[in-house]
Amino acid sequence: MIFHQLENLETKELLPGIVGHLIHTDTLTIGYFNIAKGAVLPAHAHVHEQVTNLLEGEFEMTVGGETKILTAGSVATIPSNAEHSGVALTDCKVIDVFNPVREDYK
Amino acid sequence: MIFHQLENLETKELLPGIVGHLIHTDTLTIGYFNIAKGAVLPAHAHVHEQVTNLLEGEFEMTVGGETKILTAGSVATIPSNAEHSGVALTDCKVIDVFNPVREDYK
Repeated sequence: MIFHQLENLETKELLPGIVGHLIHTDTLTIGYFNIAKGAVLPAHAHVHEQVTNLLEGEFEMTVGGETKILTAGSVATIPSNAEHSGVALTDCKVIDVFNPVREDYK
Repeated sequence: MIFHQLENLETKELLPGIVGHLIHTDTLTIGYFNIAKGAVLPAHAHVHEQVTNLLEGEFEMTVGGETKILTAGSVATIPSNAEHSGVALTDCKVIDVFNPVREDYK
């Protein structure tokens, strides 16, 4: 299928307070998440490259020991196997891009 | 560099009326584009997989002969080498994801 409408897709709660939709292609997984204020992304790492795009809100993110408060228009490019974690300082809206596909999210 | 702020990045006009910012990682290129009403994406194809995410506006897109008007929350997943084209019916805001990197956009 070529065309998708996010509100028609299954809703998944990846972690407490991190809720949204996932699209998988041949080489990419894209996550469209609403993150509730206070939700925590525990420190973790994965082989997948990740790009986190903050659309709305404030999200404090740490990547490889460097911490930054992401706001609208902030982008974090997370290398393969880099440890990262975060906490939502407000309700947030993000788009996360992964390569290769997150088979564990299917 | 891990953290980026879009408004601080160089602005590029990829095609007339298609203006924005690009971020390249090891395996991904992400384009953050404002598209002016009436701007045309001529039919083309590339080896890169592409995911077009419509954030705002209405964009009529054709992929592999199938046409759809994308609106906020619409996502088009464009396979490698699939011909695609489009026209902006209103001013639009999109995020385009490519794998592998668009070396031609560097």
